[in-house]
Amino acid sequence: MSKGQDTKTAILDEALQIASQVGFEGLTIGQLAERTEMSKSGLFAHFRSKEQLQLQTLEHSRRWFIDTVIRPALAAPRGEARVRALFDAWLRWEEVLDGGCVYVTAAVEYDDRPGAMRDALSSHQQEWLESIATMVRTAVAEGDFREDTDPDQFAFELHALTLGYHQFVRLLDDDLALRRARASFERLVACYHS
Amino acid sequence: MSKGQDTKTAILDEALQIASQVGFEGLTIGQLAERTEMSKSGLFAHFRSKEQLQLQTLEHSRRWFIDTVIRPALAAPRGEARVRALFDAWLRWEEVLDGGCVYVTAAVEYDDRPGAMRDALSSHQQEWLESIATMVRTAVAEGDFREDTDPDQFAFELHALTLGYHQFVRLLDDDLALRRARASFERLVACYHS
Repeated sequence: MSKGQDTKTAILDEALQIASQVGFEGLTIGQLAERTEMSKSGLFAHFRSKEQLQLQTLEHSRRWFIDTVIRPALAAPRGEARVRALFDAWLRWEEVLDGGCVYVTAAVEYDDRPGAMRDALSSHQQEWLESIATMVRTAVAEGDFREDTDPDQFAFELHALTLGYHQFVRLLDDDLALRRARASFERLVACYHS
Repeated sequence: MSKGQDTKTAILDEALQIASQVGFEGLTIGQLAERTEMSKSGLFAHFRSKEQLQLQTLEHSRRWFIDTVIRPALAAPRGEARVRALFDAWLRWEEVLDGGCVYVTAAVEYDDRPGAMRDALSSHQQEWLESIATMVRTAVAEGDFREDTDPDQFAFELHALTLGYHQFVRLLDDDLALRRARASFERLVACYHS
């Protein structure tokens, strides 16, 4: 990686932490300049516009998500073990960013706001749901989950579970959040078990 | 109801619609003045500060939520029927406001922001979770749900399901969102059925 790429990565890491706390709309070049101790004009040279900063930060979070959640799951054996590894990795993802899962924040910011950010976000979410469904399909093929399992339904339910966990941890300070999420996951898996 | 109360209710109805679309932080006296065709100074007389406007709008949404979700459920027979009525009523709640469930938006806005809004929101959410748990407890007492049902776990899972549905409908424009949410609810009920 060149020095220029290193710098850009370090800036985007910081931008992602800010977005997880105050949202992508709250992320400004001014704030980023303060946190990275770079000049505003230097940052403008990297991003040119606020929307470019937002889009590149969202794309950066996609790479983080793949490294933190998808790759570790793919390293696990095919089948139920991989679905379990995916869930465990998602729980770590929730802790990687200061403000928790940046997608939960972004979904609320852009669901009513058509444009490039909404399109990118929606496509990342579809990609996540398809990753879950694919791993579930493999678990059916391996004989771990029932033949009549609907992989997209499983994906919806696992995704809903992660949203519930995020809110319990962040808003309700619920000590039990992790226990609730794990119990919910076990019930989900048990329901689809062959 | 006096004319003054009617006016206040009409203002808060409008404020709630705005908050559901742009969030409580995006809700301003200026925007509200435009939508209600009232003067800013007239609105200042009602609310005195932006935080008061936010808090009173949140409290107003609590009354709407009770009327839309809790009361219709309590009109249903005790037991599983009431839990089903609660879920059906929640699905209507999602459609009552232009921007969908205002609590999903508020949770993301205030989870990292200590203060009166976060406290009020957290207390409304706890109240909602306790309402679910109480209805589930009754369903256990009526013999509809298994003796070993954990009502708080059920509440977590139903709440997570509503968050998943909200996001599918709002962000992913998923035609299947309602079918997914209903299938998920049926699986939830089936798991706890006696």
